[in-house]
Amino acid sequence: MRIDVLSLFPDMFTGPMHDSIVGKAIDRDNFEMNVTDFRQYSTNKHGNVDDYPFGGGAGMLLQPQPIFDALKAVEEKARTDGYTSNRIILTDPAGQKFDQKIAESFAKEDHLTFICGHYEGFDERIKSLVTDEVSLGDFVLTGGELPTMVMIDATARLLPGVLGNQESAPGDSFSSGLLEYPQYTRPADFRGMKVPDVLLSGNHQKIDDWREKKALRKTYLRRRDLINYDVLTAHQKELLADVKVEENPEE
Amino acid sequence: MRIDVLSLFPDMFTGPMHDSIVGKAIDRDNFEMNVTDFRQYSTNKHGNVDDYPFGGGAGMLLQPQPIFDALKAVEEKARTDGYTSNRIILTDPAGQKFDQKIAESFAKEDHLTFICGHYEGFDERIKSLVTDEVSLGDFVLTGGELPTMVMIDATARLLPGVLGNQESAPGDSFSSGLLEYPQYTRPADFRGMKVPDVLLSGNHQKIDDWREKKALRKTYLRRRDLINYDVLTAHQKELLADVKVEENPEE
Repeated sequence: MRIDVLSLFPDMFTGPMHDSIVGKAIDRDNFEMNVTDFRQYSTNKHGNVDDYPFGGGAGMLLQPQPIFDALKAVEEKARTDGYTSNRIILTDPAGQKFDQKIAESFAKEDHLTFICGHYEGFDERIKSLVTDEVSLGDFVLTGGELPTMVMIDATARLLPGVLGNQESAPGDSFSSGLLEYPQYTRPADFRGMKVPDVLLSGNHQKIDDWREKKALRKTYLRRRDLINYDVLTAHQKELLADVKVEENPEE
Repeated sequence: MRIDVLSLFPDMFTGPMHDSIVGKAIDRDNFEMNVTDFRQYSTNKHGNVDDYPFGGGAGMLLQPQPIFDALKAVEEKARTDGYTSNRIILTDPAGQKFDQKIAESFAKEDHLTFICGHYEGFDERIKSLVTDEVSLGDFVLTGGELPTMVMIDATARLLPGVLGNQESAPGDSFSSGLLEYPQYTRPADFRGMKVPDVLLSGNHQKIDDWREKKALRKTYLRRRDLINYDVLTAHQKELLADVKVEENPEE
């Protein structure tokens, strides 16, 4: 996979992308990431990339020219190198909300390009280049760099061989549809706080039941919307029925 | 405001926090940020911070001791320095979803401490330290560092004086409850793509109407859930009625 990023702040990516799971992916032959400062593509003699909004208003907007030309250059380079997909992603608070399904669809592509917006906004014509407008959530950030890093991290960890332990990915929240059960490690007694006895019992059937029921209870109490009855096993349905009785004693 | 971060990867924060709006906040007297590597607080002679889960399973979990002791140290330091609030935030996919309201509540505190989780999980007892379990969204990341940076960015930009242009913050999506109208900057004709005539008209009443209706239309089409009728002006309600008729011609 190849990931291109268009950003005015390429140095922001160095630390996070090196130290994270993305760094591990970059060390492999099949993953490449390039951050392009689109200011380099400005045809303005001062290298300007933004200007005042037409119609008045506060702030400066990113102009179309530098981004159009930077994108053209990275796309041509990727095509020359044999990459075929051309998913162009723009972070925008009005976009589709990023979730695990989108991460999974990104992980299937061979080339992704992220355009990092600017905190005061961008010229609407830039959207004509874009295949995906994606939002991280209902909050406002100063730029598209951090949400882009979040999306790259969520995507890279799904690539084959990136996570050291192959078992880690499918057991996570959102791939199973259930929130995670509580976990404990040593010591068994930490300053008076004890690990539940069942986890020390060595009885794997009991441990599995306890975990499954904890995951169902947590999901039922916090995120009922995530429970998909169609994919629950018969045993999970029984455990969930118990949870409902326990949590709603008056019914 | 003082922000403390407990993380095993302190270098991840250097670039993003320096180049972003947070860097501007740090340059001011009233904002301070410290990243503490909690491995330094491990009492294990090898500096270990994780161990196998009780009851079996894949992956390693963060142990309670290093985080308990690192948190105690940063809290004591902050109290000595005169900070009074002690909001302790843990990133967790099962937590409350981060949004602009949470960012606004964080911006009112004088001290925030973020604990960055580990991609394979952490000992449940760590949650006993925490005031806020927060999730960035329904996706899985390899660690809590990137979501922590996102939350710090969303919070720092709300602090007085951090955004250069004081008008920028309130006009954004989610503070007004409406998505942003499209914006355009020069050139008026970019490779055949033209700026809407109204924005070049100089008629400010018309421009305001056009923008307000565009914002209402976009919000109506994409995020009806954000529209709060109680705060719409009478004029906005009229414009929204027009939008509804235009978008539902058969009714």
